[in-house]
This record gives sequence, C-alpha cells and structure tokens, in this order.
Amino acid sequence: MLIIGELINTSRKAIREAVEKKDGEYIQQIAKAQEEAGATYIDVNCGTCIETEVETMEWLIDNILQATNLPLCIDSPNPVALRAGLMKVVNAKPMINSITDETPRWNAVLPLVKEFNAKIVALCIDDDGMPKTNEDRIRIAHSIITKLTAEGIDIDDIYIDPLIKPISAGEKNGIEVLQAIQTIMESHPGVHTTCGLSNISYALPARKVLNRLFMVQTMARGMDSYILDPTNKEMRGALLASQALLGQDRFSRKFLKGFREGIYE
Amino acid sequence: MLIIGELINTSRKAIREAVEKKDGEYIQQIAKAQEEAGATYIDVNCGTCIETEVETMEWLIDNILQATNLPLCIDSPNPVALRAGLMKVVNAKPMINSITDETPRWNAVLPLVKEFNAKIVALCIDDDGMPKTNEDRIRIAHSIITKLTAEGIDIDDIYIDPLIKPISAGEKNGIEVLQAIQTIMESHPGVHTTCGLSNISYALPARKVLNRLFMVQTMARGMDSYILDPTNKEMRGALLASQALLGQDRFSRKFLKGFREGIYE
Repeated sequence: MLIIGELINTSRKAIREAVEKKDGEYIQQIAKAQEEAGATYIDVNCGTCIETEVETMEWLIDNILQATNLPLCIDSPNPVALRAGLMKVVNAKPMINSITDETPRWNAVLPLVKEFNAKIVALCIDDDGMPKTNEDRIRIAHSIITKLTAEGIDIDDIYIDPLIKPISAGEKNGIEVLQAIQTIMESHPGVHTTCGLSNISYALPARKVLNRLFMVQTMARGMDSYILDPTNKEMRGALLASQALLGQDRFSRKFLKGFREGIYE
Repeated sequence: MLIIGELINTSRKAIREAVEKKDGEYIQQIAKAQEEAGATYIDVNCGTCIETEVETMEWLIDNILQATNLPLCIDSPNPVALRAGLMKVVNAKPMINSITDETPRWNAVLPLVKEFNAKIVALCIDDDGMPKTNEDRIRIAHSIITKLTAEGIDIDDIYIDPLIKPISAGEKNGIEVLQAIQTIMESHPGVHTTCGLSNISYALPARKVLNRLFMVQTMARGMDSYILDPTNKEMRGALLASQALLGQDRFSRKFLKGFREGIYE
C-alpha cells in the first residue's frame, strides 16, 4: 500500500501562506507529520503559483528534504516544473504525478519518466478528454499501460488513476470505478491503481464519511495507493482496519498498534 | 438490499429476560425499533431455550406480529421449531435461517422451504463440516444452489452465507470471503449472499469498526443482505453511505435523509 501524503499543496491556504512568508519550518513540520502518520510518499504541488511554480517547487523540496527522507511525488501538469522538482530529488526513487494519454502531455512527460527512472501516476484522459463511459476509462488505461511498458517502464512503477467523478453527477460513477479497478488490475498483473478521494463526494454532505468509505470500497476491489491526508485520524483508522481485514497486515500488528495509540477512540 | 434485524435472539440477555418474564411489550418494542431503523426482515432466534424452543418461538412471533407487518426470518437449526414458527407467519413470505448441505439437515429443511414457499439462507457447510479452503466454500455454495434450483426453488429466494471465520484465526479469512462472494454471484446470476458480521472480528479490539468496514467491503463485492443490528447508528450510517456510493440509492435520497436526521453527527 502506497500512501501519498497530499498536504503540501499550495491550493491549501496554510501552505500558500507558508510559501508567501517563506516559512520553511512550517513546510518541514507538515512533511514530518505526514511521515509520522504513515505516508510513504510526500506529494508536492504548487500548481496554483502560476508565475513562480518552478522556484516554489524547488523551495518546497529543499525544505521537505530537510525534514524527511521519504521519496517525493512531484505533482504538476507542467513539464518544466516537473523537471525542476525531479532534479532536486536525489534521496530516493521519485514519483511523477502525472502523465495522460493526451499527445502533448505524453510527449512532454514520458522522457522525464525515463530520465529519472520514476514511478508514474497516469490519469485516464486521452485526446478526447475525460472518459465518457467506463469502457472509455478501461480502454484508455489499457492504452497507457501497453505504451508505457513498450517504452520499457516497469509495470510495478505504473499507477493508474481511473479518474473519480462525483456520485452527485451520476449515481453509477462510484460502482463503475470499482469495476474498472478490478478489470484493469486483473488484465495487467503487477500494475497499481491510485486516486484522490474527495471528488467522489462533491456537492454532498458528510463528505469525509463518503471519502473514507470509498477508500474502503476501492481497497476491497484491489486499489493499492491513495493520495490523501494521512494525519486524518478517521481516515487512518479506516485504512488500518481495512488492511487487517484484507489480509495485508500480518497478525493485525499495525491495526493493534493503531488501537493502542487510541485511533479508534 | 435485505436487512435482517438480529436483535430478537434469546442469546441476548435483554431478550432472554423478556422471555422469562413474558414481557411481550419489550419484544414488540424491539421489533418496532428495528423496523423504524430500516430492517426489511425480523430475525427470530430462541435456540438457547433448548427445552422450550417451540413455545418460545410461537410466543415471540405472536408478539412481533402485533408490532410490525415485516416478514420474519425464522432462525433455528431445529426443524420442529422452524415448522412451528413458519405456521405462525401468515403476513408475508417468510425466510428460513438456515439450510446446509449436511444430509440430515438438508432432508429436514428442504420440505419446509417448499411447503412455505420461503426464502432460504444456506450456510456453506456440508457433510465434511465447515469449509477448510475457499475452494471448498465455493464448491459447497455451487452444490447448494444447483440442488435448490433443481428442486424448483427460485434463485431469487436463495441467500448463500459463505460462513465468516475470524481474521484472528487466519489473516486471509476476510479476503477469501470477498473473492467467494463475487465468484458465487457471478456464477449464479440472481442468487443473493448474506452473512452475520461479528465473527470476522473475534478476539480483536475495536470490533464494531472491523464489523462495519467488513460490511462495506463485502457490499463492494456484491453482497446484498446482512443479519445485523439496524438500530446501531454507525452501522446504519455506513450502510446508507455505501449504498449511495454503489449507485443503490437514487439521487442519494436515503443517504441525505439519514444525514438530515443526524446519523453522521
């Protein structure tokens, strides 16, 4: 299970303010907190800093690497910012978030995946845009996996993001993703799947409950990576319990440790 | 989704005491509370009253039917008690809990299923006992479904209980059931699956969390019936959220109603 800590993102007010004030200590603190809460990768996203994305990316990474040795997930649609970030990450195998099957993005990001021997998050989007049907989603995933492996990328380095659409926009938007996860993973043994969780609950109340249970549902269908806030106690509790139930936690050790630490109180 | 309210069971202290004191009002109250909380069947189990099971069954049903018109699930391994209960249930199609593939039990219960045109819960147990492997579980389910339908039982009336063993006794005991549910339901379109949830968490702490998330996991693999306490707020919250996420709740109406009623506070 690969948990990508999502908190270092300039779309979040506290991070934006830390960037503006050059408060590196706060960034370090958030990186450390995510590691302690069980993150296995730290996401870095400063896409909202349109004019200063490159230097902000570099500054964030410099600070994160003072706090943790976790590998980083460099998160941008902008190949220049991706490259700037990847140049900084020398501590561990990096992850790139993300490539798509859109021709310009594919051509810009693929060379970076190869050059930096990175893990790659691939969104199910192609030149026709977001998938309209679940067949589209599965077809795009198949195309991406086939092309990446043909380019020599290890299947174990590929993380397919099926693209989550809100159930408020279509009541089958959740169940279709569950089916797609299983189809994609069974068709391509060794490939991983990942997603962010918050889209699923857009425009509904009790979003945290929906996001958390959607994680449990997708895990039950095989998903093995999430981009989430690992410091959220309820989310972490659901993650540990799910792993124990799925036989991914030998002797329920992590679950029992979480229980002793009061995660279920 | 068929929710069998489990509270009227003489293994529970409050029910045992009500039976001893002939406090029919309490039984009626519990039946009503389960209906209001969303139960679609009411389970009746007095298997702990070994000497008096038949008359206790009749007394319980008399009281339940004063409180609700919900159909009943007559729950006993004893064919005499089953028949006594089934004779009382004239308000709606009853359910029998349960048959197995053990020859004596099969021969005793099958005639009751036919005579009373009942829905039937079938446990994955045969003459060799509980399934030792997941292949055993699936093989027994296949045998039961094939034989029941050959006897003229409608596939829509069959509820396979895969038999839940604790993850504390074997860490694959949960994931194997998830795989079995999907295999059984895909191999026999129209068949239902059901289970009680508490076995999964035996000998572990935070059992309610584990039970609840195991429900979410099994629902994500297709399970469509549970024997549970519908009045438990957290369980009901997880059920409504899961149904909304799985596209089983048009416009998320039941989920939104639950939210307005404070289920997620």
